[in-house]
Amino acid sequence: MTLCEQTQVHELPGNVSYAQGSAMNVPYATAFHALFHRAHGEAGESVLVHGASGGVGIACVQLARARGMTVIGTAGTEKGRRMVAEQGAHHVLDHTAPGYIGDVVKLTGGQGVDVILEMLANVNLQKDFDALAMRGRVAVIGNRGAIEFNPRLAMNKNAAILGVALFHASPAQLAGIHSALVEGLRNGTLQPVIHQELPLAQAPRAHEAVLENGHHGKIVLVP
Amino acid sequence: MTLCEQTQVHELPGNVSYAQGSAMNVPYATAFHALFHRAHGEAGESVLVHGASGGVGIACVQLARARGMTVIGTAGTEKGRRMVAEQGAHHVLDHTAPGYIGDVVKLTGGQGVDVILEMLANVNLQKDFDALAMRGRVAVIGNRGAIEFNPRLAMNKNAAILGVALFHASPAQLAGIHSALVEGLRNGTLQPVIHQELPLAQAPRAHEAVLENGHHGKIVLVP
Repeated sequence: MTLCEQTQVHELPGNVSYAQGSAMNVPYATAFHALFHRAHGEAGESVLVHGASGGVGIACVQLARARGMTVIGTAGTEKGRRMVAEQGAHHVLDHTAPGYIGDVVKLTGGQGVDVILEMLANVNLQKDFDALAMRGRVAVIGNRGAIEFNPRLAMNKNAAILGVALFHASPAQLAGIHSALVEGLRNGTLQPVIHQELPLAQAPRAHEAVLENGHHGKIVLVP
Repeated sequence: MTLCEQTQVHELPGNVSYAQGSAMNVPYATAFHALFHRAHGEAGESVLVHGASGGVGIACVQLARARGMTVIGTAGTEKGRRMVAEQGAHHVLDHTAPGYIGDVVKLTGGQGVDVILEMLANVNLQKDFDALAMRGRVAVIGNRGAIEFNPRLAMNKNAAILGVALFHASPAQLAGIHSALVEGLRNGTLQPVIHQELPLAQAPRAHEAVLENGHHGKIVLVP
């Protein structure tokens, strides 16, 4: 048995599977918080999802596309890029290719993107500013260490670096997030990608599978 | 003769000297843009002016105090700290003293400050996060190089690093800035500190004086 606050329980629309519903909270809620509460992404703006084939990345692509943003997604494998395109990115780039930051600038007519959703800030933060528009915002969703960084890059563009921690979203923000996510499930704009469903007894296998490279989508344990 | 756009000309209230008026644009406009447009400082919030005895720092202290914020200012000299207190800071600290960041936290009842106005990001950015409240904002106004920085610090507190360049303020923001600054001059909450007035013929001497340590306030050239 699980005891929940009323605010933690949300309706699962009839067109959505249990597995898909279970894949919503952390990735989709994090993506929404980053994109709309922190970076204030607006319809008509452009967004670079820097690492778009992971759980949060897919959620970012679907949410940004549905809001009317121009979406550029990156992935490091051919399979990942195919998936990012299928999930609705207008443009897909390979972040292991030299010169891909220049391609981001070209795709935005030389302006740079308004928003960057960054999944690996310790690698990308400094070069993100080459791809960023004046008054742009970099939302830091993922990070694995320190980076040598020149704060003048942010000054020169009146730009913002925004840390994202869903854990610190306010109760009002959480209520807004889940209202929007339920509506997105209902109207079909949000479609969590399920890689695999495994019985609870195979939880150890799920731990291994989640660490394997080259899979995309969530692994869901079912009773 | 100087040719100006109509939007670049602002009324100088009768209670303000020509020298004071000439000291408003860049420092006060930058401080306003940083504090209110970029960091969204609110009455009742706390602000650390990290380097408060310089031109922009003094403007930050006066603007934040007048808005109803709790102001903590730092300076590296006794003379500077006395001046920061005279300009309206509620608390004044020595940023050359070990442990002063801990003092900032104590002064805010253990919460940290809501806003930091940072004049030397390449030295302070990493440690600023020890002084920052949850959902805090660091506005980077001054910087002289790169710094090793861990983006997770911003994530952990849902915090923001906001580059500040007055040059990129929008026309609407500039109009707002100057309306507010003229009003602040008129009601006496903004009082530019003039260190020295020199005749235009002594411009070379002014260049030397501005580089000398230990003076506070602007040097104004008069016809």
